[in-house]
Amino acid sequence: MMADITPVLERADANLPKSLDRLFDLVRIKSISTDPAFKAECRKAAEWLVSELTALGFTASVRDTPGHPMVVAHHAAAKADAPHVLFYGHYDVQPVDPLNLWDAPPFEPAIKEVEPGRKIITGRGTADDKGQLMTFVEAVRAYKEIHDALPCRITMLFEGEEESGSPSLKPFLEANAAELRADYALVCDTGMWDRETPAISAGLRGLVGEEIIIKAADRDLHSGYFGGAAANPIHILADILADLRDETGRVTLENFYEGVEETPAQIKAAWDTLGQTAEKFLGEIGLSIPSGEKGRSVLELTWARPTAEVNGITGGYTGEGFKTVIAAQASAKVSFRLVGNQDPAKIRETFRAYVRSKVPTDCSVEFHAHGGSPAIHLPYDSALLNTAKVALSDEWPKPAVVIGMGGSIPIVGDFQRMLGIESLLVGFGLSDDRIHSPNEKYELMSFHKGIRSWIRILDALAA
Amino acid sequence: MMADITPVLERADANLPKSLDRLFDLVRIKSISTDPAFKAECRKAAEWLVSELTALGFTASVRDTPGHPMVVAHHAAAKADAPHVLFYGHYDVQPVDPLNLWDAPPFEPAIKEVEPGRKIITGRGTADDKGQLMTFVEAVRAYKEIHDALPCRITMLFEGEEESGSPSLKPFLEANAAELRADYALVCDTGMWDRETPAISAGLRGLVGEEIIIKAADRDLHSGYFGGAAANPIHILADILADLRDETGRVTLENFYEGVEETPAQIKAAWDTLGQTAEKFLGEIGLSIPSGEKGRSVLELTWARPTAEVNGITGGYTGEGFKTVIAAQASAKVSFRLVGNQDPAKIRETFRAYVRSKVPTDCSVEFHAHGGSPAIHLPYDSALLNTAKVALSDEWPKPAVVIGMGGSIPIVGDFQRMLGIESLLVGFGLSDDRIHSPNEKYELMSFHKGIRSWIRILDALAA
Repeated sequence: MMADITPVLERADANLPKSLDRLFDLVRIKSISTDPAFKAECRKAAEWLVSELTALGFTASVRDTPGHPMVVAHHAAAKADAPHVLFYGHYDVQPVDPLNLWDAPPFEPAIKEVEPGRKIITGRGTADDKGQLMTFVEAVRAYKEIHDALPCRITMLFEGEEESGSPSLKPFLEANAAELRADYALVCDTGMWDRETPAISAGLRGLVGEEIIIKAADRDLHSGYFGGAAANPIHILADILADLRDETGRVTLENFYEGVEETPAQIKAAWDTLGQTAEKFLGEIGLSIPSGEKGRSVLELTWARPTAEVNGITGGYTGEGFKTVIAAQASAKVSFRLVGNQDPAKIRETFRAYVRSKVPTDCSVEFHAHGGSPAIHLPYDSALLNTAKVALSDEWPKPAVVIGMGGSIPIVGDFQRMLGIESLLVGFGLSDDRIHSPNEKYELMSFHKGIRSWIRILDALAA
Repeated sequence: MMADITPVLERADANLPKSLDRLFDLVRIKSISTDPAFKAECRKAAEWLVSELTALGFTASVRDTPGHPMVVAHHAAAKADAPHVLFYGHYDVQPVDPLNLWDAPPFEPAIKEVEPGRKIITGRGTADDKGQLMTFVEAVRAYKEIHDALPCRITMLFEGEEESGSPSLKPFLEANAAELRADYALVCDTGMWDRETPAISAGLRGLVGEEIIIKAADRDLHSGYFGGAAANPIHILADILADLRDETGRVTLENFYEGVEETPAQIKAAWDTLGQTAEKFLGEIGLSIPSGEKGRSVLELTWARPTAEVNGITGGYTGEGFKTVIAAQASAKVSFRLVGNQDPAKIRETFRAYVRSKVPTDCSVEFHAHGGSPAIHLPYDSALLNTAKVALSDEWPKPAVVIGMGGSIPIVGDFQRMLGIESLLVGFGLSDDRIHSPNEKYELMSFHKGIRSWIRILDALAA
């Protein structure tokens, strides 16, 4: 532990307006990683981060990959025996369509007072993940400005492909394992339990993304001439997707639930204390009926159960008006969320075999893989986790809780497997941040107290 | 019968190059009726036709409707007791997407020699229906140039909304019944049996077009946060579409087959003589297995059986790459082809009730009607039909045949019901004309001999 952290926290408070200016600069960069049209913008975001970190005294560099570049930065600690932490975030963002549903241009960040005393930061990436990664950068800044030193040795790793399956990540970690290995990783890409209760995520679902393209006739057909006799790829696709889940909400793929275990009673009990309900969870998004497996709580459904979801579908005429056509092809993007020991590779193969079995022999199917990662389960009571719990509880109105998480952060598993280091998943997002949706926002409180939280956590880790 | 028609036919031959120039002028007009962006182009096509017909001595005018305008033109006959024919065609065309599949710009018509002695006219609308309607206009021109008179009293009616459900047609016929009523209608929007065999269509399937929009959450969702608990509108839509047909290919809607009768044995027998097979019919489009009701011939499936087809579907992320989103809504355009006495209004209501029954109570559905018309059955042996049969057989290598038709031409029913006149369905399209698809074409032979066919038919009718 370094000297009293009060001045550091005060400096973070004083810096807030400038911290926001810097976040806005980063949000203005249209770093949509999944769309090749924004390749240059992704590099621009990486370069912006490198110049910021260099100015803070880091040895920082843009590191090329076959895809979008990584950012790696190093800074020594005040004391030689201080722990070495690897901080991870991602500078890429999701696409912004449908653009017409945004209240303001997605890449023109702004502060909005939504109710007395409650301000939000609006714009694509404010919550996922630019606002979050900047909480750590600004925490480090406050330390440097007050002590001209850092309590821990810090390596930062910022990725530019998190929203597009992280194709370059494993090879990069492999090639740079020695440089990146630390005592533990701090990953800031998760959320709070609620606006007063900070959370540490101990479970993450895995993900398998797959695109399928069904091809029937060699051209679009007139549904009058050919309707009733010619195969319709949209019907083939609809059959495939409909039969993917049974009426109880279970996924029908063979052996899909291999490796899926029931949630231990004590963890379920801990979740029950959180007082979540379907009404609260779904009410927030205008729904009320849990759609997945019957007889399970929404926390179980989203934290501890696997899913099959269609993320996109298209085929035939989708423009204004009507066109009586039978399409030559139709396609869908399907993703599976994985838990326990479900094997992404196995599930991809099972899915492909299932699809092939449903395609008539005079039609064909094409597959495109989009990322795959197993689920992650972190210990519920490690020293690292307990230290962070205390630090977070000091900052926020309510004590920190340990939760599961429905999303996927593949890198946590890669850190475990490839660098052999444990991760701490702390983030300050809220479930109504609309990440991946129009009108994404990040609470000003999340940003401000997030910065202060990292100051406390770094201090506690140094102790 | 007027004097020998040989000079008229010869004039049509001599006119061919100029006739093609005129057709090209019309094809260059982008009259896509279903897309509001092309409203002005539709009017332009109507005005072009009016000026052509006026030049031919017709009393022609553009007639406004709430949608795209109609063209009406009148010309007296040489003899007062000559029959009065109402000629119908449509100047609007289908959208051109996917544009990248066209070998040449769709609105830049050209002549292409595809094999020695076989030329085609390429471009959107060349076959459906601009090339066809111009066969009649050019037939009339040849008559006028030779005899300065016409063998029949002729009224022409050109519609601009045939490809978008003809919303203005019924009201227009009602309001102008007295002006449009004739002895019979000549409708040129159908096809030949094959390139040597002209055909008269005696059956037309009806059509019900319906767009459904399924709405779930009030925003696009992150499939990690909400996947497994939140309703996915694409899955709801897939279930609806999959259950619309059973494993035998039958449509599952309640009472859907009410009014559908088995094809009379003698008509089936006549069809059998045409020697059509699934291999030939589907082979042409790269398929081989009939997809509809089991145990029926492709002619039965496309001429005499009703269908349910999805013509378009869209929802979620359909761009480059992958986006793990649960969409707020998903939509599909569905059409039903009707036969016998199936009631379009009833079927639309049954379909809507079926869809509503499949939508969870916390989600909603929106419907948009796109056209509805019952099936048409014309007598297989009227005087009109037999006269035309002889005239067509004189022009083409093989005698004319009477066939069914899978498509829908609602106006034929409207002529029957609202004007009380019988229609003759003669056209010169071929099944490989790719109408409604990229690279639409019309055979030069169809255009040339089509003009000559109308000269013969008008002459025979006048007799």
